Amino acid sequence: MTDAAPQTELPPFLVRQAVRVALREDLGAAGDVTTTATVTADAQGKATIVAREDGIIAGLQPAEAAFRFLDSEARFEHVIEDGGHVAEGGTIATVAAKTRALLSAERVALNFLGRLSGIATLTERYVAEVKNTRARIVCTRKTTPGLRALEKYAVRMGGGFNHRFGLYDAVLVKDNHIAAAGGMRKALDALYAQVGHMLKIEVEVDTLDQLREALSYPIDAVLLDNMDVATLKEAVAIVTGRVLTEASGGVTLETVRGIAETGVDLISVGALTHSSRNLDSSLEWS
Amino acid sequence: MTDAAPQTELPPFLVRQAVRVALREDLGAAGDVTTTATVTADAQGKATIVAREDGIIAGLQPAEAAFRFLDSEARFEHVIEDGGHVAEGGTIATVAAKTRALLSAERVALNFLGRLSGIATLTERYVAEVKNTRARIVCTRKTTPGLRALEKYAVRMGGGFNHRFGLYDAVLVKDNHIAAAGGMRKALDALYAQVGHMLKIEVEVDTLDQLREALSYPIDAVLLDNMDVATLKEAVAIVTGRVLTEASGGVTLETVRGIAETGVDLISVGALTHSSRNLDSSLEWS
Amino acid sequence: MTDAAPQTELPPFLVRQAVRVALREDLGAAGDVTTTATVTADAQGKATIVAREDGIIAGLQPAEAAFRFLDSEARFEHVIEDGGHVAEGGTIATVAAKTRALLSAERVALNFLGRLSGIATLTERYVAEVKNTRARIVCTRKTTPGLRALEKYAVRMGGGFNHRFGLYDAVLVKDNHIAAAGGMRKALDALYAQVGHMLKIEVEVDTLDQLREALSYPIDAVLLDNMDVATLKEAVAIVTGRVLTEASGGVTLETVRGIAETGVDLISVGALTHSSRNLDSSLEWS
Amino acid sequence: MTDAAPQTELPPFLVRQAVRVALREDLGAAGDVTTTATVTADAQGKATIVAREDGIIAGLQPAEAAFRFLDSEARFEHVIEDGGHVAEGGTIATVAAKTRALLSAERVALNFLGRLSGIATLTERYVAEVKNTRARIVCTRKTTPGLRALEKYAVRMGGGFNHRFGLYDAVLVKDNHIAAAGGMRKALDALYAQVGHMLKIEVEVDTLDQLREALSYPIDAVLLDNMDVATLKEAVAIVTGRVLTEASGGVTLETVRGIAETGVDLISVGALTHSSRNLDSSLEWS
Amino acid sequence: MTDAAPQTELPPFLVRQAVRVALREDLGAAGDVTTTATVTADAQGKATIVAREDGIIAGLQPAEAAFRFLDSEARFEHVIEDGGHVAEGGTIATVAAKTRALLSAERVALNFLGRLSGIATLTERYVAEVKNTRARIVCTRKTTPGLRALEKYAVRMGGGFNHRFGLYDAVLVKDNHIAAAGGMRKALDALYAQVGHMLKIEVEVDTLDQLREALSYPIDAVLLDNMDVATLKEAVAIVTGRVLTEASGGVTLETVRGIAETGVDLISVGALTHSSRNLDSSLEWS
Amino acid sequence: MTDAAPQTELPPFLVRQAVRVALREDLGAAGDVTTTATVTADAQGKATIVAREDGIIAGLQPAEAAFRFLDSEARFEHVIEDGGHVAEGGTIATVAAKTRALLSAERVALNFLGRLSGIATLTERYVAEVKNTRARIVCTRKTTPGLRALEKYAVRMGGGFNHRFGLYDAVLVKDNHIAAAGGMRKALDALYAQVGHMLKIEVEVDTLDQLREALSYPIDAVLLDNMDVATLKEAVAIVTGRVLTEASGGVTLETVRGIAETGVDLISVGALTHSSRNLDSSLEWS
Repeated sequence: MTDAAPQTELPPFLVRQAVRVALREDLGAAGDVTTTATVTADAQGKATIVAREDGIIAGLQPAEAAFRFLDSEARFEHVIEDGGHVAEGGTIATVAAKTRALLSAERVALNFLGRLSGIATLTERYVAEVKNTRARIVCTRKTTPGLRALEKYAVRMGGGFNHRFGLYDAVLVKDNHIAAAGGMRKALDALYAQVGHMLKIEVEVDTLDQLREALSYPIDAVLLDNMDVATLKEAVAIVTGRVLTEASGGVTLETVRGIAETGVDLISVGALTHSSRNLDSSLEWS
Repeated sequence: MTDAAPQTELPPFLVRQAVRVALREDLGAAGDVTTTATVTADAQGKATIVAREDGIIAGLQPAEAAFRFLDSEARFEHVIEDGGHVAEGGTIATVAAKTRALLSAERVALNFLGRLSGIATLTERYVAEVKNTRARIVCTRKTTPGLRALEKYAVRMGGGFNHRFGLYDAVLVKDNHIAAAGGMRKALDALYAQVGHMLKIEVEVDTLDQLREALSYPIDAVLLDNMDVATLKEAVAIVTGRVLTEASGGVTLETVRGIAETGVDLISVGALTHSSRNLDSSLEWS
Repeated sequence: MTDAAPQTELPPFLVRQAVRVALREDLGAAGDVTTTATVTADAQGKATIVAREDGIIAGLQPAEAAFRFLDSEARFEHVIEDGGHVAEGGTIATVAAKTRALLSAERVALNFLGRLSGIATLTERYVAEVKNTRARIVCTRKTTPGLRALEKYAVRMGGGFNHRFGLYDAVLVKDNHIAAAGGMRKALDALYAQVGHMLKIEVEVDTLDQLREALSYPIDAVLLDNMDVATLKEAVAIVTGRVLTEASGGVTLETVRGIAETGVDLISVGALTHSSRNLDSSLEWS
Repeated sequence: MTDAAPQTELPPFLVRQAVRVALREDLGAAGDVTTTATVTADAQGKATIVAREDGIIAGLQPAEAAFRFLDSEARFEHVIEDGGHVAEGGTIATVAAKTRALLSAERVALNFLGRLSGIATLTERYVAEVKNTRARIVCTRKTTPGLRALEKYAVRMGGGFNHRFGLYDAVLVKDNHIAAAGGMRKALDALYAQVGHMLKIEVEVDTLDQLREALSYPIDAVLLDNMDVATLKEAVAIVTGRVLTEASGGVTLETVRGIAETGVDLISVGALTHSSRNLDSSLEWS
Repeated sequence: MTDAAPQTELPPFLVRQAVRVALREDLGAAGDVTTTATVTADAQGKATIVAREDGIIAGLQPAEAAFRFLDSEARFEHVIEDGGHVAEGGTIATVAAKTRALLSAERVALNFLGRLSGIATLTERYVAEVKNTRARIVCTRKTTPGLRALEKYAVRMGGGFNHRFGLYDAVLVKDNHIAAAGGMRKALDALYAQVGHMLKIEVEVDTLDQLREALSYPIDAVLLDNMDVATLKEAVAIVTGRVLTEASGGVTLETVRGIAETGVDLISVGALTHSSRNLDSSLEWS
Repeated sequence: MTDAAPQTELPPFLVRQAVRVALREDLGAAGDVTTTATVTADAQGKATIVAREDGIIAGLQPAEAAFRFLDSEARFEHVIEDGGHVAEGGTIATVAAKTRALLSAERVALNFLGRLSGIATLTERYVAEVKNTRARIVCTRKTTPGLRALEKYAVRMGGGFNHRFGLYDAVLVKDNHIAAAGGMRKALDALYAQVGHMLKIEVEVDTLDQLREALSYPIDAVLLDNMDVATLKEAVAIVTGRVLTEASGGVTLETVRGIAETGVDLISVGALTHSSRNLDSSLEWS
């Protein structure tokens, strides 16, 4: 995680809302029937969340919230900050709470921590690959329905950056928009005539000819879609810094370094959120 | 997908709720600023959802719902049923709707389809591995927060079976419950004294000694946790069909066949939902 | 209430949610116009919740929550636990809070306490009737819409047990399912082919012939619907402990003992939740 | 039901909201596992809702909504209107829908119909008792949390009338308000100085002296609490029609006629909603 | 603000709900990107809310709630109560909280305070105009969708009174109701036959003839719609105190005194809520 | 309204959600008691929405939705599009629906139409004032809590443009951010190190010196706060088109032309949403 990141935070009600949904999903109407029957209401316990593999941590807020939802006096102390590295076997956090709360919230807490740390960990691998290039690794809108804000946060925790959050906070003009509008000029004219001045405009191009046409407008960025490394290099040369350049399309850990070395400003990687796997961790009892 | 599966369906309000959340997440308060500016309100379009890789389809209901949310007269026709196989390049469905609705709902529809088909596809690979054994592949509670019902449905579409949906619909007794209750006898006595007669009771055991103790109670299933293949075989021999046997713990595509051949009834695989990757598909314009 | 019961608890967010709904219903947009105009904001009061008739208490959690919603520093101390017996005139709990909160939350608190204690009290009467038989008194799905989790909790507080919570956590095969599937074999084959291994399967039978057919499948329980005592006895003899036996249909306080003495395991009583009346209690000012 | 009543209706979103909550409660995340496995998705069915006892019907709207929620093309035809009388064995309504929808919505539909018709039926018995007196039977705020609007509607369907809906739509001054304000004069002065001119003001009195004091203010109604019939008669004589008179406190079917004959305008009966039992009905397949 | 008013309060969950909606609207999924990047999580700050013009304050509860939502330990101390007067440049309240919370909640807090104080201030001007007449200034249902309870509270804080809160808490009979019912007699007969005894009934009249007809029924109030001052005087003379008289229709600060001097009891002013402008205030850093 | 605007639309679920909230607010639990009692359920009616003053229309979608919520077969036909001009007395739309729906939805429909058209009308006056200058009129975050998306839409309908929608979709650096970060360099460094590349960055400056400092960074826009016309001119000269220039602070219809003539690109006007008054319209019966 870079120095800048620890400042980042999640809007607190988003965390509460996501955790409430997850706990309702797990507890249903009958609650934790196993725990309620076998553990007395006043029993207190302590446990440690331990990583079962190396990775970057993200999701301590929802993990803590899960325990505190079921025991408002739970004490959750993290050893590592979101964005920090944990080694296999390392302690991520300790929790002291009612034993019932520990047992009933465990899975929800670990599900958040696992998914978000998995994203942060995969992001960090891409970020490491492009070290010492100008390229930033950015995420896409290919996120899990309902968890976008949390997943985009996890990308930041892994050292990545966020592309737009949705269809509402930036303009991205694709082929179909251009076709529907009747040409790039008409599409961009319509956009400049209507959208707010605080929204950036990016245009997707598939060829260098399209790139040249796009550059004749005062756009902010170009998305260079599915170009090979040689073409990307040429594209960067054509742009010469006038707008931001973003490479996109099937980027993998194997190909990302080569793409970064073309000089593009941004590389968007859908896999960060659509193909990460959970970081494995467990709750160990003290 | 087995013959039995096409009957399965999702409660309709779960689908609507999940899709509404996802569309709000993507459209925000300003809506799709690119599409609104470049496409007229009355333009109509047609598109085809095409698979970019082989797999098992799941999630047609939320995909359709996404388009119909934005255009109540959208016509969505699937070529393949949920649970069916699609080949790379094959058509999954066609959609005819207002062009704006097609463009604005595309990502949400594909996000659902991608995630759920990814789970179904991975499940089907595990199911194929254990063919001609008695073992069923079952999922766990390691699901994405907020999407459990949909993900468990995807497992069924891949030919897998569901374990319990949450803490509320079955009893699973673990070490900590036994320790908190003061021994297995006390834990099970407490459970039989309290829980409803329609809830099954499964006990997690780590050793054959624990297994033998568990079998002295009228339980429904044993979870054989993290045992090697030799021990599993011995466990199955000890149980001799009196209760269901479930193998669990770090199961992979490489190890699952060997585990199935021990004769266990069930193999639970967390990876189905915590480490699948999205099935790649795209919306192609006609 | 049995010794086992005090362990039971309600998922806390279910309580909060139910109480929030009830308070919004009672306070509307204008709030408690009488109290606001006549009582100053800083006045403090004390009151006692007193039973006006004998019964079993259930619902202290929502009662307390109602007061604390309107005064987060309200002190609510119960004299009796949920599941405990109160005599006419006995004190159930004391509350110290802002006078406005006491007056504005009173009705909501008593409505929860009255309804849930009414259910617990009626349940306890049925339980007392079947003392020293093997029969458990269980509830049905004939609950008040929106309050099922709380009402099923009240049944447990009265010494009863819960049947399934909904259509989702156990299988109950009725005539219509068998007819639709094309026979009991087809129905059960379909079920075993599809439903999770942690769901129990019960079959409803109206005659001893149907019972014999049902017993040829590996089901978990039979629901003996609307059989007279003689037939029930015969049914129990036929089953000889292989599956759980449940008597159902128009059970009353007058008939329940006779039914229990047939040796059935379970007697389901819709009246527990669809025909109980509230336990009368009042808030007396100190 | 009187001629006037058929006009009454429930705000449609209240019905939809209540039904959605009830269906979610019953279907959970897994849905109706029995029906889904045994009934094909395209099977169509027909059924009749039949009364198992005499009574007054209320709740056709939520009953219909339950079926239509699960099958938007369900046809629900009622034979009797809300407020109408049904004889034991009489048909209340017929439903034609997908067989799955019929089976999965049946319990929710009958739970609404049973509870609301039970209230209407009990109300009608009280109304019949006071026939040819000036007294109206009115309900109280002792309703089931979350269902107040529906239960108050059911009271109207039984020929009763509604008292205030909550703390917000009328003023009812009780002992504690008077004590907190420092006397009846201060309480009423505060009220007249603050509350809107469209809110009626009723004062609760326990004695004839309190009644006389109350009548010295321009109030709209007096609640004569727990007075015996002789005292009620005296009270009515004192009031001589200047304000509305309401008798309240432990009213039963045995005592209500005598109370009505004292000449009071209103008799409030908590039992209508806190101690009714469901009207028994069932879904019979055609 | 009159002496009576400080008692008034808003149902606490209405405030929390309104503030949560407003914060979600402002923070979205990404949160306050400017503040998060530039201010450290542990920085503490202090600020003062200062009035930029004279007025009456309303809305301190939602203003405080906004800060406390983002920092549960924020200390908010108001110098002026709701209903109190502030001079240009005067301090309304001080807030000490995390700097991030101060910056991120500032606009939401001021939006509530500005809108509600604007309404209170405009109300107070109308109230001042009618000083020493019997007329009360009352609001209408022409409120901002979603904020009615808060806006009606602001009217009270400005010394005004509330008319009905909605269609549910009082009867107002207009031309169309009379036409639909087939005459005033039929309309009122229907109403008396159906509505609860605690609901007041007001009839709108356009002419003195209509007024005379209305007075032949036992109604509670008449709305004298769009009458000039001379006609109003005549109307008041006709009524002679038998029912409440309300003048309505295009009332302005210029015309209100004349209307009040006709002797009407109430003057309803839609402008209080549909045409007020926000009271200007700002957050000044200490 | 400009040619470009008719393309704009509101996300449909935002409209539905806002209308549902408003109808619940107006109908409460008892519904429209006046209409229900006086109008039969099957009566059909027709009405016309007529403007009582000149203006620009906005809000036809929520107006239509209000009627259709209560009568799904209501036919609503608008004569004028959102963004179109209506003259005093002109017809805006006609509605044919159940008479009950017409009467019960009328106020909610007109409240949306009145507020949003009021904003559009005021915006259009500002836009007209700056005709033939380069300045765009833009709104601020000083909107009514809960209605931001709708109010920002109304601004577009009046020919204005939207500034950022919230704290999440663009960066605006103010004094306090700079102070907290320890200078403009540190603030901007932190921002460039963290925020997404698709977010524009604007810096607020109070003096020309601050302006010059700000221009030494690659920012997108400067907010020239509370500068007089002479200073604004100088500022524009200094900027010479390198970034967007926005004038802000106490802009009125009297001062806006002078400000526009300084050559600024944008003029933000809080009054558009915090001090507009509703456009007056009424529902006339046919």
